[in-house]
Amino acid sequence: MAATLTVGDLAKHLGAELVGEPDGQLMRAAPLEAAGQTDVSFLARRKYLPYLATTRAAAVIVSRDLGELEGVPSGTALLWVDDAHLALAETLALLYPEEGKPAGIASTVSLGPAVELGRDVTIGPYSVVGADVKLEDGVRVGAHCVIGDRCVVGAKSELKDQVCLYPETLVGARCIIHSGARIGVDGFGYVFEKARHRKVPQIGRCIVEDDVEIGANTCIDRGSVGETRVGAGTKIDNLVHIGHNVRVGRNCVIVAQVGIAGSTTIGAGVALGGQVGIIDHLNIGDGARVGAGAGVGKDVPAGESWFGYPARQRTQSFRASVALTKLPELIRRVQQIEEKLDLQSG
Amino acid sequence: MAATLTVGDLAKHLGAELVGEPDGQLMRAAPLEAAGQTDVSFLARRKYLPYLATTRAAAVIVSRDLGELEGVPSGTALLWVDDAHLALAETLALLYPEEGKPAGIASTVSLGPAVELGRDVTIGPYSVVGADVKLEDGVRVGAHCVIGDRCVVGAKSELKDQVCLYPETLVGARCIIHSGARIGVDGFGYVFEKARHRKVPQIGRCIVEDDVEIGANTCIDRGSVGETRVGAGTKIDNLVHIGHNVRVGRNCVIVAQVGIAGSTTIGAGVALGGQVGIIDHLNIGDGARVGAGAGVGKDVPAGESWFGYPARQRTQSFRASVALTKLPELIRRVQQIEEKLDLQSG
Amino acid sequence: MAATLTVGDLAKHLGAELVGEPDGQLMRAAPLEAAGQTDVSFLARRKYLPYLATTRAAAVIVSRDLGELEGVPSGTALLWVDDAHLALAETLALLYPEEGKPAGIASTVSLGPAVELGRDVTIGPYSVVGADVKLEDGVRVGAHCVIGDRCVVGAKSELKDQVCLYPETLVGARCIIHSGARIGVDGFGYVFEKARHRKVPQIGRCIVEDDVEIGANTCIDRGSVGETRVGAGTKIDNLVHIGHNVRVGRNCVIVAQVGIAGSTTIGAGVALGGQVGIIDHLNIGDGARVGAGAGVGKDVPAGESWFGYPARQRTQSFRASVALTKLPELIRRVQQIEEKLDLQSG
Repeated sequence: MAATLTVGDLAKHLGAELVGEPDGQLMRAAPLEAAGQTDVSFLARRKYLPYLATTRAAAVIVSRDLGELEGVPSGTALLWVDDAHLALAETLALLYPEEGKPAGIASTVSLGPAVELGRDVTIGPYSVVGADVKLEDGVRVGAHCVIGDRCVVGAKSELKDQVCLYPETLVGARCIIHSGARIGVDGFGYVFEKARHRKVPQIGRCIVEDDVEIGANTCIDRGSVGETRVGAGTKIDNLVHIGHNVRVGRNCVIVAQVGIAGSTTIGAGVALGGQVGIIDHLNIGDGARVGAGAGVGKDVPAGESWFGYPARQRTQSFRASVALTKLPELIRRVQQIEEKLDLQSG
Repeated sequence: MAATLTVGDLAKHLGAELVGEPDGQLMRAAPLEAAGQTDVSFLARRKYLPYLATTRAAAVIVSRDLGELEGVPSGTALLWVDDAHLALAETLALLYPEEGKPAGIASTVSLGPAVELGRDVTIGPYSVVGADVKLEDGVRVGAHCVIGDRCVVGAKSELKDQVCLYPETLVGARCIIHSGARIGVDGFGYVFEKARHRKVPQIGRCIVEDDVEIGANTCIDRGSVGETRVGAGTKIDNLVHIGHNVRVGRNCVIVAQVGIAGSTTIGAGVALGGQVGIIDHLNIGDGARVGAGAGVGKDVPAGESWFGYPARQRTQSFRASVALTKLPELIRRVQQIEEKLDLQSG
Repeated sequence: MAATLTVGDLAKHLGAELVGEPDGQLMRAAPLEAAGQTDVSFLARRKYLPYLATTRAAAVIVSRDLGELEGVPSGTALLWVDDAHLALAETLALLYPEEGKPAGIASTVSLGPAVELGRDVTIGPYSVVGADVKLEDGVRVGAHCVIGDRCVVGAKSELKDQVCLYPETLVGARCIIHSGARIGVDGFGYVFEKARHRKVPQIGRCIVEDDVEIGANTCIDRGSVGETRVGAGTKIDNLVHIGHNVRVGRNCVIVAQVGIAGSTTIGAGVALGGQVGIIDHLNIGDGARVGAGAGVGKDVPAGESWFGYPARQRTQSFRASVALTKLPELIRRVQQIEEKLDLQSG
């Protein structure tokens, strides 16, 4: 059950400037067009301004940089803040506190020998925990997870349902790993011998540092020799592939369906858009950004923004892209010049 | 066991024009090159004509628009129809009626409190059903599924094995959800605060309307605030990603590995080819088509066909693509002109 | 526990030229920068030469083609070989023999009627094996697998945890199928009838031949009518999609996130880079190579290398790509010519 609070309480909590009545009760959050009279809503983009005039929300969190707003319904209070997204995150944390499900190990859990469990560990039905696994205090494991031998999961981390950790995987504290993620998978390593591909044993580990979130059905390979590592605070979306021996720095953002091939190094604070592909053995510098769908075949210097396929630095990429749209016309212009000069084309 | 019928029965059922013997027994369907004398086959593309001469099929369903056919084996009857694919679908439904496995709840199913089960519900071994879940009449759930608290699954829907519905997910009637699909996953929402990414609680729902099919290992996020919605009759292939607050209209076709970023709206009857990527907050109009691999960064008007990366309207995209192949030659031509004019090139 | 051997033993086993002391004990393998004095390391690329000077490895396997090396630490032996990757594979097999876990069927396995089990079969906790399934000698099935009715898995194949084989799937001998892979899934087949998409029953099979490895969360569809087939010795990475009726030849290498649409034929020895997309009904010839991220819309002749989106033969693709970078300048040059000629540009 969500907690309740008043519009005034929320304004105070957010440090927001309140315009309107402070007494309304807030029960839930909802988009402008769906909100009712016990709901708080929010407005962060001009694009959604038209929904404001007809909203029935008790209160709307508004970004100061939207400027003067007209046609606000009389029953709706405005909460002016510097950053509506941040204020929304605060508000949601207040209205929807995490369910404090009682800790406990389901009776159907299969525990291997020498498993070490911290305090307040929860493990859901049918999960299988291998030998010599350590789950630290407050770890929550969903249903149908498989945690391989010798894995360690740090305090307060959560594995949703049907997660698989291959043996020897290390997960830090306060991580969230979503359903169907596979961590520490054998990398794609073969040598060609006698007309066939021979598997190279994959004996390294996968290490996920603290405060990482990993999306549903994402796959991260273990090291071949050595390790694959995901830095603290990095957030990874659904269906991402990270190959063996990749190192991802701290506080990166990796959007859905990105693929990073083996032994590539991603610096700290890097942002990779959806479906980006990066070939093996590259360096992507700290703070670099790569646009959605780009295919990276070269090192990206720190701080640069790259786009396109093949990916290039922002200015080059945009210039080439714009130029390409002018190409059909350019061909005609050259034709014209050649005619004027009596030059034979082709 | 498949049912059996005669060539004549099938012709009548399909309203096909029969050329050949009506008495052959049909047991199975098979491709032309693999069919035996109790098999029906089909021919819908000229490309596969060479296989007709040597087939041993008892009967072949043929599209009328293929025109006169020569070299048909004497033992093979032809069934002429307007639409061979449609006739094949009919034929397969006759020959391979769905197995009427008896309904029932496996003894190892874990049922939460206040679960409401309709008539003839089937749940496979080890599946976990959370609190306050409602499964309507005739729902079939495979093995190892996890259905979160407060989910609803509509009548006659089928969840294959190892499906995960996050809490509060709504699935309509007659849906098919394939193995490994994750529905209602937390979206990818963070605010940057004090040099780290802070998770925005994802408190919306995911709603899948009636008659939707969802492929294996596909991931669909719940709404952040508000909902993610997949319209009735839409078909989604394997390994697709659909972000939070996306709205997909009715009767769309979304091919494998497509990615749709948050808050984008897809109209009705839209077709997205394999590996298409669409960035966030866009509108793709009703009936639009996007070619395989395209990367969409702008709104697509209703009814248009877009191609390429970055995606553009069909004619523009093709013109640019053709022009690009002429570019190396164009550079030489400009060089030639400059020489003639005694111009120094850069 | 890994086996131990001496530097001299290893040199002999590899047929390597040993430069240094033969008596050091080798316990593990590690990268140059992480290796300690009981570790063997390897050096195959010039890029990693800087790590050699400071390594503490007991021995380093080195490719002969790197030539003279300077600054090798005095305690480190070099093992010169023709192919460092191959020698590493040999070394890892020696140091990390596969754990001989005792065979056995977990007490929580659900076995359907008429299941046929060979000798030394292992099945992990909670796995569900359908009716009439055959698992041949030495098959190992992990936890939480679902093996549908009438599947066959060949001798010594291994299914990791949470694998799903849809009914009638055939897997050959010595295959490895990783966690979350879905094999024999219904293909994406619909006919449009009365303004809706009607599902075409998918009644074919999926056949995986011997010595195939399939990555985590990869999806392979069954045939619609007829079969989908993956040839012997082919290696498939994570998150790959293979549509219905695709035929993949022998000894192919298919990197992560590749998508192959229905009815396309891939020859023998084909290499597809990461995120490659191939549309339906194409032929990719024997030995062809397609570069990462390419989008293939036409048949690729045997032995050719194709790149780009849309994919083209290597030379054409590179020429177009290089030309594109010159395009902005070319536009200026044409402008200049027009000015000189007093031509009005469009």
